[in-house]
Amino acid sequence: MRILLATDGSFQARGAEVLAEWLGYKLSAKLVVLFVRDARLIRVPELLDFGALTIPVPTYREELEKALAAKGEAILERLGKTAREVGLEVEALAETGLPHEVILRHARSADLLVLGRSGETHGASFLGLGSTADRVLRASPVPVLVAPVDYVELAGAILGYNASESAVRALHTLAALAKPLGLLVRVVSVHEDPHQAGAWAQEAETYLKDQGVRGEALVLSGDPAEHLLALQGPSDLLALGAPVRRLVLGSTAEHVLRHAVGPVLTVR
Amino acid sequence: MRILLATDGSFQARGAEVLAEWLGYKLSAKLVVLFVRDARLIRVPELLDFGALTIPVPTYREELEKALAAKGEAILERLGKTAREVGLEVEALAETGLPHEVILRHARSADLLVLGRSGETHGASFLGLGSTADRVLRASPVPVLVAPVDYVELAGAILGYNASESAVRALHTLAALAKPLGLLVRVVSVHEDPHQAGAWAQEAETYLKDQGVRGEALVLSGDPAEHLLALQGPSDLLALGAPVRRLVLGSTAEHVLRHAVGPVLTVR
Repeated sequence: MRILLATDGSFQARGAEVLAEWLGYKLSAKLVVLFVRDARLIRVPELLDFGALTIPVPTYREELEKALAAKGEAILERLGKTAREVGLEVEALAETGLPHEVILRHARSADLLVLGRSGETHGASFLGLGSTADRVLRASPVPVLVAPVDYVELAGAILGYNASESAVRALHTLAALAKPLGLLVRVVSVHEDPHQAGAWAQEAETYLKDQGVRGEALVLSGDPAEHLLALQGPSDLLALGAPVRRLVLGSTAEHVLRHAVGPVLTVR
Repeated sequence: MRILLATDGSFQARGAEVLAEWLGYKLSAKLVVLFVRDARLIRVPELLDFGALTIPVPTYREELEKALAAKGEAILERLGKTAREVGLEVEALAETGLPHEVILRHARSADLLVLGRSGETHGASFLGLGSTADRVLRASPVPVLVAPVDYVELAGAILGYNASESAVRALHTLAALAKPLGLLVRVVSVHEDPHQAGAWAQEAETYLKDQGVRGEALVLSGDPAEHLLALQGPSDLLALGAPVRRLVLGSTAEHVLRHAVGPVLTVR
C-alpha cells in the first residue's frame, strides 16, 4: 500500500501529517511525502505590471525559487526523519507546478491521498475548505482523506451510506482500512422512508461483516450531513461518497468536509 | 473478498462459472452465485394481447415461475457442489426481477463481479456483448470481469493504461489481483507522442513495482483497442478503464469487450 501525503508544511497541514504517518505505521504502508513549489508564487512578479521595480525580475524569481526549494527540503527532511524513526518506508518528492495538478498526478500512483483541509494561504482561523483541497477532491481517481488541523488518534469510524455508486466505493474503501485498524464502523443511512434507510444500512452491514469488520447500523430521517456531523467526534473517521456533478462536489459531502471535527474520507 | 458470479446456467456462461470458481479458490474469496429468474419471461403473457387463449394466464404464469425456480435451483446446486469440492465458501442467491437490476443491486456488496459476455437469449454462435452484460458494465460500482465462453487458466495479464481516472482504477484493481495470482502484467500505453505514452507506461510500472507485482511496458502508437486485442491470448486477463459518457460505454472498451479472446476486466 502506498499513502501519498501532500503538505505545504503549514500549521494547517499538521493534522494531515500526523494522520498519514500513523496510518502508514498501522497499515505497514509506504509513505510518499509531496511538497509542491507553488508555481503561482514564483510567477507572480512576471504576471503583474509593477511599473518601475528596484529589483530586476529575473533576480527576484531566482531568489523566490531558492527560498521555496529550501523550504520544501526542510519540510521533507523533518517528515522523513519522524517517519523513519517509527520504521516507515518514506519517499520524498518536491516538484514545481500548480499544487492541485501536481498532487493529482502523483495521486494516480497512490492508494490513498492524505491532505489538510486548507493550506498556508489561509490564516490559522480559517476553518473552510481550501481551493487546492477542493480541486483535488473533485478530480482524484483515488480515495482522499482530509484531515483537520488537530489530530486525535482514530478510535472509530462512521459511514454515510445510501447505496449510490460513490457510497459503495466509500464502503469498500473504509472496510479495507477499518479491518487492519480494528475500527468499529457505525453505518448511517438516512431516508424519509425507514424501510429504504433500513435496507441500505443492512446492505452495508452485511458487506462489513463479510469482510470481517465490526459494524452497527443507525437508521435516521432528515438531513444526512447534519446527522453525520452530529455523530462524529474528533477521533472518528467519517467516510462518505462524494459524487461530482457538473464540476461541483455534492452538497452533503461539501457541507461535511467544511464542518467536520475529525478526518473525512471521500471517494468519488 | 467477495466474488459475485451472475449466471443463467447457459452454455455462454460456462467460462464465467469456471473463472469465478478458480479466482475464488486462488484468492481465498467467498463466492456468491446469483441466478435471476427473469421477470420479463414470466410477465410476457400478461403484457402481450394474445386474443383468445386456451390456457388461462394465471396458470401459465404459475407454471413458468415453477419451471424457472427449478432451473435456478439446479444451477445453484451444481455450482455449489463443484465449488465446495475445492473448499470454497459459497452463498447461493435466486431472485426474480430484471437481470441487470438484480445483478447491480448485489454487485454493491461484492468486490468483483464475474459474468459471461452474453446469456441464453443468444444462440451459441453469438459472439457479441449481450444486453445484460452491457447494462451491468455501464452501471456497476465495482470492477466487472467479463468471461468468454471458453475458459483457459489465467497465465498473464495486460493493462491498457492512459492515466485517465478509469485507467487508474483498472491499474489498482488489476494489481490487487495480479499479486496473489502471480501474474506478470504487460502495461500497454498508446499515444502518437512516444514521450507521452512512455510517461504513462512508466507511471503504471512504478505503481506495480511498488505493490510487488511484476510488470513490463509496451509503448505504441495507433489504435489502442486493436493493439490490446492483438496482444491478448486466451489465457491473458485484459484490464482497462471503461468510462461511460452520456450512457454509452467508451469506444475502446466496447470494441475490446466485443472481440476479446480472453477475459476482460473493466473498471469505470
